[in-house]
Amino acid sequence: MTTIRVVGTGLLGTSIGMALSRRGHRVLLEDTSPTTLALARDLGAGEIHRDSEQPHLVVVATPPDVTAQVVARELQSWPEAIVTDVASVKQSVLDQLRLAADAASLTRYVGSHPMAGRERSGAVGAQDDLFEGRTWVLVPHESTLPAATALVRELGMATGASVVEMPAAEHDLAVAAVSHLPQVAASLVAARLRDLPDGAVALAGPGVRDVTRIAASDPLLWTQILSGNAVAITPLLGALSQDLANIQQALEALQPNGSEPGARGVLAQAIAQGQQGQARLPGKHGAAAATFASLVVVVPDEPGELGRLFTEMGKADVNLEDVRIEHAEGRPVGLAEVWVLPSALERLQEALSANGWSVHI
Amino acid sequence: MTTIRVVGTGLLGTSIGMALSRRGHRVLLEDTSPTTLALARDLGAGEIHRDSEQPHLVVVATPPDVTAQVVARELQSWPEAIVTDVASVKQSVLDQLRLAADAASLTRYVGSHPMAGRERSGAVGAQDDLFEGRTWVLVPHESTLPAATALVRELGMATGASVVEMPAAEHDLAVAAVSHLPQVAASLVAARLRDLPDGAVALAGPGVRDVTRIAASDPLLWTQILSGNAVAITPLLGALSQDLANIQQALEALQPNGSEPGARGVLAQAIAQGQQGQARLPGKHGAAAATFASLVVVVPDEPGELGRLFTEMGKADVNLEDVRIEHAEGRPVGLAEVWVLPSALERLQEALSANGWSVHI
Repeated sequence: MTTIRVVGTGLLGTSIGMALSRRGHRVLLEDTSPTTLALARDLGAGEIHRDSEQPHLVVVATPPDVTAQVVARELQSWPEAIVTDVASVKQSVLDQLRLAADAASLTRYVGSHPMAGRERSGAVGAQDDLFEGRTWVLVPHESTLPAATALVRELGMATGASVVEMPAAEHDLAVAAVSHLPQVAASLVAARLRDLPDGAVALAGPGVRDVTRIAASDPLLWTQILSGNAVAITPLLGALSQDLANIQQALEALQPNGSEPGARGVLAQAIAQGQQGQARLPGKHGAAAATFASLVVVVPDEPGELGRLFTEMGKADVNLEDVRIEHAEGRPVGLAEVWVLPSALERLQEALSANGWSVHI
Repeated sequence: MTTIRVVGTGLLGTSIGMALSRRGHRVLLEDTSPTTLALARDLGAGEIHRDSEQPHLVVVATPPDVTAQVVARELQSWPEAIVTDVASVKQSVLDQLRLAADAASLTRYVGSHPMAGRERSGAVGAQDDLFEGRTWVLVPHESTLPAATALVRELGMATGASVVEMPAAEHDLAVAAVSHLPQVAASLVAARLRDLPDGAVALAGPGVRDVTRIAASDPLLWTQILSGNAVAITPLLGALSQDLANIQQALEALQPNGSEPGARGVLAQAIAQGQQGQARLPGKHGAAAATFASLVVVVPDEPGELGRLFTEMGKADVNLEDVRIEHAEGRPVGLAEVWVLPSALERLQEALSANGWSVHI
């Protein structure tokens, strides 16, 4: 049994406390807000840390803008504890820590980025399985003790996450590309919808809904994340601006009075390069991009119909890899696009057709 | 019974032929490729148009770059027929037609944009219900005969689509914002993934997957769409570039040695404006943005488990508004986030918990 002190009982801190308590670890909670702290305790995240009991590990789960300062304080307060944090940007925390903490205590620090979150923030959104199946990035620095890395790895795995290790700069470049740039793009595309007439917004389909889904995220949290990773994001935004300028130039050349040689090639190349990048994204279970086959089923928009569909898929012994529901506009029917292993496609189609479903490959 | 000539038996032309044939209309098919034409016929899209039988309506479903030219030819060939096209950009088709066709015959032309498509192109991807529940935008111009608009409206509805009417310029501005700009953004963000190390790509989560899903689209088709709507897209790209430049400037100010007053405000405002735009997107059944409540259910990744979940939702008489499956990385469990009417949330949670599901609100 490990004793873990969790500082900051928001969504991540409370979820970590719940996950580790469930596994039988002793979790001691702290937060600047007594209300939040009591809520986290009542949710089963652990006990309130009242005395000077020494923890083996401290998890700092405060807002990112105070992370380094709190980590430094915890390293000093608990001279035998390993300390980690959960901020989604790692290099700036480390840089600030190098100024705020002495070299000896820094050996007990290892950074973490458990890649899980929800639109709903705070302890009230916490879940003891928030990290199940998620990736927990472990970010040791050059003087981190191997024992520190090992302990945090073990506890990350205890929450159900898959743990990977990566240097801070590499982590920050990775999340800049796979998380922060997509967030900026989604927010800016969504912002363009603000001033559209209602009739134009009504033409929005599944494409723009997907592109802008994460634009619903919290402005305050994202201001801190983007600020904290400015160094890694800026060159990506520069590259994006340049690509955008090329497309603008090509489109201007294609307008009346424009001189268009090569302009269509620029557009085709941009879309083709997007295809190549998209194809690199991991598929199910963290495997390399896997290609599944899909079919579209027309589903009456009534309780139980989707259940009947998926039950019959199960009876046909076909596992659903992904599903996408599209509700029909103005009529009581929906479309379910289901992805399965290509080898199962024909069998599934036959089974569903035999049961009266309208199925399209 | 109306006689409809379909020119171009790709995905849209063949699907229109199938939908209208199924409704008992007489459909005559034409394509420059005899193979494609025969395939469309075999799929039940109609008969091959061999003699000089007069159609009531001609649907031009060729690639967008030759649409205007084919519409002009059809107006001349069938002097009593109404002619429509299905190109996803309308003003440029109209502009080209005004040069290519005489004013009298133009009264028989009305533009269409049936907003449906698939990643799988060509007749082989055709479906007789491709338009069910989709929006069919009807684009009459100032001299279009009311009877022409009425006929195309009737046939659009016969395919199962909801028909809305809109002037060409307004249509093009709308799709620039809700379709073409998101496509460009998705492609450019995805293109940035090309050169990432494998370890960085492995950190990709549901957010970037959603943002870049449509980046898998066809470069050739999109080159034609973007070229055809250059006038409407260019100002949106200009605004996007300006927003991007503001964010870049703010991030540079936040870097070491930068002068940061107001920089965080710029970031927070960009994310907040994205929230506002995203909230305008239509919800289910074309209604104004509706807010549903969601809960997350842990689902064993085995055939039939999702079926069991949705069956039990149906038994609880709760209708599923939307669903999102997240597969867990490296472990045999998935998460299903289901959206339902807020009033049904508590009942659903109780019903699922009672059946042993791990449910989180």
